[in-house]
Amino acid sequence: MSPIVATVIGDPCGVGPEVVLKSLADPALPRDGRPLLIGSLAALDRTRAACGIDIALRAVAHIDAARFEPGIVDVLDDYPLDPAEIVFSRASAACGQAVLHWLDTAERLGRAGAVQATIMAPIDSTALRLTGRLKELDDLQPAGTWLLRVGDGLRVVPIAEHVLMRDVPATVTQANVLTLLRVLASTLENFGLRKPRIAVAGLNPHAMGPEDREQIAPAVEQARADGIDAHGPVSPDAVFRQCIEGKHDAVVSMYHDQGQIAVKTAVFEGACSIYIGLPYVHLSIPHGSAYDIAGKGIAQHKSMLAAMRTAANLAAGRGFDLNGARA
Amino acid sequence: MSPIVATVIGDPCGVGPEVVLKSLADPALPRDGRPLLIGSLAALDRTRAACGIDIALRAVAHIDAARFEPGIVDVLDDYPLDPAEIVFSRASAACGQAVLHWLDTAERLGRAGAVQATIMAPIDSTALRLTGRLKELDDLQPAGTWLLRVGDGLRVVPIAEHVLMRDVPATVTQANVLTLLRVLASTLENFGLRKPRIAVAGLNPHAMGPEDREQIAPAVEQARADGIDAHGPVSPDAVFRQCIEGKHDAVVSMYHDQGQIAVKTAVFEGACSIYIGLPYVHLSIPHGSAYDIAGKGIAQHKSMLAAMRTAANLAAGRGFDLNGARA
Repeated sequence: MSPIVATVIGDPCGVGPEVVLKSLADPALPRDGRPLLIGSLAALDRTRAACGIDIALRAVAHIDAARFEPGIVDVLDDYPLDPAEIVFSRASAACGQAVLHWLDTAERLGRAGAVQATIMAPIDSTALRLTGRLKELDDLQPAGTWLLRVGDGLRVVPIAEHVLMRDVPATVTQANVLTLLRVLASTLENFGLRKPRIAVAGLNPHAMGPEDREQIAPAVEQARADGIDAHGPVSPDAVFRQCIEGKHDAVVSMYHDQGQIAVKTAVFEGACSIYIGLPYVHLSIPHGSAYDIAGKGIAQHKSMLAAMRTAANLAAGRGFDLNGARA
Repeated sequence: MSPIVATVIGDPCGVGPEVVLKSLADPALPRDGRPLLIGSLAALDRTRAACGIDIALRAVAHIDAARFEPGIVDVLDDYPLDPAEIVFSRASAACGQAVLHWLDTAERLGRAGAVQATIMAPIDSTALRLTGRLKELDDLQPAGTWLLRVGDGLRVVPIAEHVLMRDVPATVTQANVLTLLRVLASTLENFGLRKPRIAVAGLNPHAMGPEDREQIAPAVEQARADGIDAHGPVSPDAVFRQCIEGKHDAVVSMYHDQGQIAVKTAVFEGACSIYIGLPYVHLSIPHGSAYDIAGKGIAQHKSMLAAMRTAANLAAGRGFDLNGARA
């Protein structure tokens, strides 16, 4: 059986529902998958009508009721969102609450093994803040996870996310690097990469500094002793180009911008992000809810389509290459 | 009169002389320039013979004797390097000493206005260390200069070079940022860019941290009050892509790897580097002395040719575009 890929439709007032429906209707999405949507059928119906997308939907109240019939997409609609709250391009606390509920549902199903992959369509930070339930989008990151960015041959995951530069050196510890190396290696193997080759970026210029010698190098050595094909510390200004050129399957970076500068400068098509450290595949896509063009039918669904294909491949252990080859 | 572009031939035992001669012999080098070489005629003769390069050379002992005749390249050969010391692929203290002398000559001529641009061909760090006169290649950087990297639409200069990450936040001061903004703006104007648009990268993720607010933002504000078209702090993971896409003429970065990760990940053809803060144009090229292929005639001279054309254009105030348009 192919993996169930559950996509949370994102903020109902933004382009989330539109890119989700367009992707499911796109002939480029393999027909043998088992997609599931989590969200409001009313929101999807409104988007389908406004954007003229030809797709059949059916609401279910529980995942056991999903039938995955060809040509009909099951929508797990388990939250009482008042359709009157759904107004294109307007941030609403009610919609924010619904999104948080759907994300919780997705996480619960993923952790229970009821779905094999989840995708988060574009959410809206204003709507989420209006709920009073979270302050930063970072708060949406499940505990005990790291965010792996993937695009154009570059795969990067930092040991921590938004840390002030002055606090970065203290986070570069042997334990932090080693923990992530272990999680990343087993994750990539689950994704279908045999003996993944992992490079570890240094912290300092040319990887020549105290943290490089005292923290990163011993972590790499320990990982290698554990059988992980880890290398480093590699000069931060060289390691990402090496990854693009195929020398590494993934890079562990030491701070947010180290990897993000590489990804956002060199990757043209837009990277998707994968939360690793979970017992299932969880992806998010790189663009926002784009309120300015919501409901107009002009949103690009390329990122979402790639995310759906990637999620299905990774959950099935078929690797990253959408054309079928390893990595 | 076209600018005099003086090229130090680099380490005589490496590929420096070869890429220099190949560039001067290349029909793609505009014929109306006034090139000058600084180095050993014996070394150049040996390379010319070994690599089969068709070019006429003439030694001069003083720049006043240079004639810049079409088809004959003047070589300022003012150091008594024993030709027996020149052995391809072998690091020699005598050659290192000669290189240091030639670099001093180039700097003296540049500062005196006798030449309008200088280029440093590939040197060899081992040979230079053997002289006992310098420990790090960084020591070759003239005092009071910053290193601007240029390639594929990306132009980046950091406020400092090789600083440990733990010491970076302390270098991000309003004074350091403002000083560099002023030097960069006047340099780019001298290069021929009218009212250059300069972006300043933030230090922290999304440029949201204490240094971004308290040091960088006030420096940008002051620069704007001085009439400089400065913007920032811009999110470090966005600013380099913006530069490539033409939104900025150059970026001021807050630490070595911030810019170098962008340049070395996204720039494919190899960036050249320009020391700014001098009264003349001073370039170096991005590859090393490549001892392994010295004297074989197989070294790529693309970077050196681009450097010679760029140096001549910048010294003449014609901007960066080798095809003639602004920037």
